[in-house]
Amino acid sequence: MSHPLSGVFAPVVTPFKADLGVDAELFVQHCRWLLGQGAGLAIFGTNSEANSLSVAERRQLLTLLVEEGIDPARMLPGTGCCAIDDTVALTRHAVEAGCAGVLMLPPFYYKGVSDDGLYRYYAEVIERVGSPRLKLYLYHIPAFTGVPITLGLIDRLVRDFPDTVVGIKDSSGDWDNLSAMLAAFPGFAIFPASESLLSRARPLGAAGCISATANVNPAGIGRLCAAWDQPGAAQLQEQADAVRKTFQKYPMIAALKFATAHYSGNPAWSTVRPPLGALGAQQQGELLAELERIGFAMPGLAH
Amino acid sequence: MSHPLSGVFAPVVTPFKADLGVDAELFVQHCRWLLGQGAGLAIFGTNSEANSLSVAERRQLLTLLVEEGIDPARMLPGTGCCAIDDTVALTRHAVEAGCAGVLMLPPFYYKGVSDDGLYRYYAEVIERVGSPRLKLYLYHIPAFTGVPITLGLIDRLVRDFPDTVVGIKDSSGDWDNLSAMLAAFPGFAIFPASESLLSRARPLGAAGCISATANVNPAGIGRLCAAWDQPGAAQLQEQADAVRKTFQKYPMIAALKFATAHYSGNPAWSTVRPPLGALGAQQQGELLAELERIGFAMPGLAH
Repeated sequence: MSHPLSGVFAPVVTPFKADLGVDAELFVQHCRWLLGQGAGLAIFGTNSEANSLSVAERRQLLTLLVEEGIDPARMLPGTGCCAIDDTVALTRHAVEAGCAGVLMLPPFYYKGVSDDGLYRYYAEVIERVGSPRLKLYLYHIPAFTGVPITLGLIDRLVRDFPDTVVGIKDSSGDWDNLSAMLAAFPGFAIFPASESLLSRARPLGAAGCISATANVNPAGIGRLCAAWDQPGAAQLQEQADAVRKTFQKYPMIAALKFATAHYSGNPAWSTVRPPLGALGAQQQGELLAELERIGFAMPGLAH
Repeated sequence: MSHPLSGVFAPVVTPFKADLGVDAELFVQHCRWLLGQGAGLAIFGTNSEANSLSVAERRQLLTLLVEEGIDPARMLPGTGCCAIDDTVALTRHAVEAGCAGVLMLPPFYYKGVSDDGLYRYYAEVIERVGSPRLKLYLYHIPAFTGVPITLGLIDRLVRDFPDTVVGIKDSSGDWDNLSAMLAAFPGFAIFPASESLLSRARPLGAAGCISATANVNPAGIGRLCAAWDQPGAAQLQEQADAVRKTFQKYPMIAALKFATAHYSGNPAWSTVRPPLGALGAQQQGELLAELERIGFAMPGLAH
């Protein structure tokens, strides 16, 4: 089993205009900034409001990134939808664009579905895409989907599709689950969803992390991820934790976007699509005050 | 506030071919049978596996029904998706097709969203569709969405869009919630999701029901719904309950489809899309035995 991706990926926040349309130019610009800061691009993730985008919007944005010269080998787009046809369309498009992999939610409308049903879903997608270039990362985020990716399901998929199903993002926040996966699947590219777990998870073989706060602190998380076994790692962990803990006090996506708006000087960044809401004025003030207190910055962000 | 729809609606099960493609011809045929049995067509509901269909598939199927001469005034298609653009596209299409109304899920990926965020979602859809012909029925099904439609949200939407937001399907199965809605919103078209509540809910003003088992027992539920205040209603309730209780012992969608397969003589009906699974052989045998025991039939179903 290969271990193709590692390091830090940002589930790239998606900028919207006042009319809620995607600001494609700003999106490209932000992707360039993240790459420059050393982060990979997990576009169309939960923090990207991907499920508030249509299939057509996701295809257009990915095509645009490639046309703009952004390296698809640094991209891990989210392609998992409720309907197999949509998942196949997005996954095929990502493979054809040359993306390093895809991060695939399970179908998330029906609850209480069996591992067997989920296996058949993933198998059907893999067979329909039918490409040896497909590298599939499962996406375990039960708080949003209500549909967990169990160790039994991973085991079955990895056994039957060893060259395709190569990793997972674990957004459970559950250390027991993460450490059990790390123990059960050596060589599988396992990404916790938080940099706060890096010091514990990297020694056990975690590939890196795919973290919301990599949108605002990509370099800090990158240093920690690379130097976890070096002197000074504890301090890097502490610094990264301070940023994460600050953002975690607020609705995450709204807070990430507000900070990006503030530090880039572009207020349009604050816009989210309903049903999400932007931070209120008081929250904005509190977040900024705390970020200043911990010496937070987003160096090189375009103004 | 108008009270446009009433009676029994079936969330029409969607037939698939062996390759999982929609069997459009069989779908039209089943809709005709349901109409003939007195049920309205709540196509693209939860029991229709609507979220396992792409936006394009839903549009094509609705267009086909109208082309086949099925009266859109008897249709209440589900149009609620996670992404506003998709919801607007489906809703506009349904309005243009002349549908009596649309049944609209809230956006269901993000959890813990505020009533304010949900209000802005629905308001945005209503404004973009921008048609006085739009009659919107909210869809409260928290076990699947994790996103409840609260009384406060209903109140705000009804006040601001009184000619548009005209009803709700309550799939909570929670009598307290249903009776609170019936008390709070007289004249609002409130449909519980189960015929087992009709005897209690009709006297309080419920408009009817939109029930999974209306796919297999439309006439029985229709008689109960119409005659709730007549002599013999208790027996009609008992008969309807016997059917519902039987199906409820099994995964509902698979059981509805298996029964339709059996009583129509067309085994293709049993196919479901992953992540759902068909009934196993033992479940099939048990379900059939119990249906025979209670004298169940699907009269007039095409063979």
